[in-house]
Amino acid sequence: MSESIPDKEVIEKAHILITPYIHRTPILTSQFINELSGAELFFKCENFQKIGAFKARGGLNAVLSLSKEQLKNGVTTHSSGNHAQAISFAAAKVGAKAYIVMPDNSASVKVKGVENYGAEITFCPNTPEDRQNTVDAIVKKTGAAFVHPFNNYEVIAGQGTAAKELIEDAGVKLDAIIAPVGGGGLLSGTSLSAHYFSPGTEVFAGEPEGAADAILSFKSGKVEKAPFVKTIADGLLTPLGPKNLEIIRKHVKDILTVSDEEIIAAMRLLWERMKIVVEPSGAVVLAAVLKNRELFQGKKVGVIISGGNVDLGKLPF
Amino acid sequence: MSESIPDKEVIEKAHILITPYIHRTPILTSQFINELSGAELFFKCENFQKIGAFKARGGLNAVLSLSKEQLKNGVTTHSSGNHAQAISFAAAKVGAKAYIVMPDNSASVKVKGVENYGAEITFCPNTPEDRQNTVDAIVKKTGAAFVHPFNNYEVIAGQGTAAKELIEDAGVKLDAIIAPVGGGGLLSGTSLSAHYFSPGTEVFAGEPEGAADAILSFKSGKVEKAPFVKTIADGLLTPLGPKNLEIIRKHVKDILTVSDEEIIAAMRLLWERMKIVVEPSGAVVLAAVLKNRELFQGKKVGVIISGGNVDLGKLPF
Repeated sequence: MSESIPDKEVIEKAHILITPYIHRTPILTSQFINELSGAELFFKCENFQKIGAFKARGGLNAVLSLSKEQLKNGVTTHSSGNHAQAISFAAAKVGAKAYIVMPDNSASVKVKGVENYGAEITFCPNTPEDRQNTVDAIVKKTGAAFVHPFNNYEVIAGQGTAAKELIEDAGVKLDAIIAPVGGGGLLSGTSLSAHYFSPGTEVFAGEPEGAADAILSFKSGKVEKAPFVKTIADGLLTPLGPKNLEIIRKHVKDILTVSDEEIIAAMRLLWERMKIVVEPSGAVVLAAVLKNRELFQGKKVGVIISGGNVDLGKLPF
Repeated sequence: MSESIPDKEVIEKAHILITPYIHRTPILTSQFINELSGAELFFKCENFQKIGAFKARGGLNAVLSLSKEQLKNGVTTHSSGNHAQAISFAAAKVGAKAYIVMPDNSASVKVKGVENYGAEITFCPNTPEDRQNTVDAIVKKTGAAFVHPFNNYEVIAGQGTAAKELIEDAGVKLDAIIAPVGGGGLLSGTSLSAHYFSPGTEVFAGEPEGAADAILSFKSGKVEKAPFVKTIADGLLTPLGPKNLEIIRKHVKDILTVSDEEIIAAMRLLWERMKIVVEPSGAVVLAAVLKNRELFQGKKVGVIISGGNVDLGKLPF
């Protein structure tokens, strides 16, 4: 695996590599939400992406970048859901075995998704230590190649292709792009793409108050833990990776936190007005835009809707 | 108002007239649902249309076709919801007053939509007779122009533009198009567009078993009432209009009925796999395709997803 921050050519190559397997997702707009926010918003709909989330991009780039030799014992990862599906999906595409470690409180729709791609699932308690220990045991036993869900430059380059498409397809020069931040794979990739493909476009992040580690790490410069972890945005629970943090400190303008109430209200707005199914982690960014009206007033803002994998039986409204 | 079945030029003119005010809605596809159905499906997403349903098209064409003189006392209609929003929306665009008669069991999201466009609402019991009597009283009192929700050639021509776009944008010659049938505005317009713009493309309808009037009328040749009316597809409750029936008898291949259980399952599939919010009336067509696998096997089928206005607080799953 690569050991340096992806440059422009690396992201361009990643995009070419994964394009046959992914959707070039549409950019939708809503006059109603524009009026509500005071900004002009361009929603990059990664909820329509393969496996229902942007993570297909990073997972595919990481797996497609492995050699036949590296793939022969399969691939493994840990993930609360979307990255798990991404690696299972990518492994199925190249005919490799996938061993997936999932926290035992994962949403059933995400577990089903992983099962559908024929991956072998191992459940574990939902702590970073338990996840990593379980993966380590699998690597030791099977020799599978480990693809970290975010602290991995191939994954970062892959996730960056969503913002690259957004920049290419928006039809206007974006003043800003906002992405959600959990481990930081999407955010770091987004900030690199903005830097390379749309210099001058500022990158912001939306983070749940109930998993507010990135904002602390962003300020202190080292990986911090969240003061507490309790949020409906189940894709954004993990702390930043060191590789992600380094990029984010360099290329991200600010991190904006939002409450679960604000996330749920934004999610409902996306469902009701735009008729799209968005998971809570994907609604965090709209919540951040609506909460920081003065910051985005009159601006053209790309909003990355990260995913749409949600248990319809457990909606918060 | 026009008194003859819209010809090709009338639908083309309607399309030009309404284009500045509507979305050219995207066509989405799903590999998963293709495999499930055995057909190749092209979903025309009118749930993303202005006001959240195809009815914006017919409402706009009818209102934009009225003269200044005809508009000066406003417009009126009766509707369970989507046509009500369409007329309110269209009236607001031309600066006319809208008087809307809605059944007192209308979904609150649809009532709110009508209110947002500044229309004046009168509620009445949900029978065809009560609706018409209430509208007649408004016309007598105000002099407003009545735009029937479906038994109106301008409305039919407007609704036909959805299929026209589907035919133009699908990128393949469609073997069939399927649309839901309530009053028959969308279905009659769809069948005319297929006839004019894609000869040889067969048109089918999906109808709820719990409002199965169209299938009876289609066979007998006169407007029949449903044996009983009880379905979750609240946009498809009304019997066919005579103008709609005449066109449907000429240009529609068959009407396929589905149960509420089948509608809910199809709706859930659209939400879970395609991440789009679709109302029950819009899911009827996918339910009909899945139920009639042998009929559509291997075919390229355009599927008109009619709308996405649904009370999120009252989901059937």
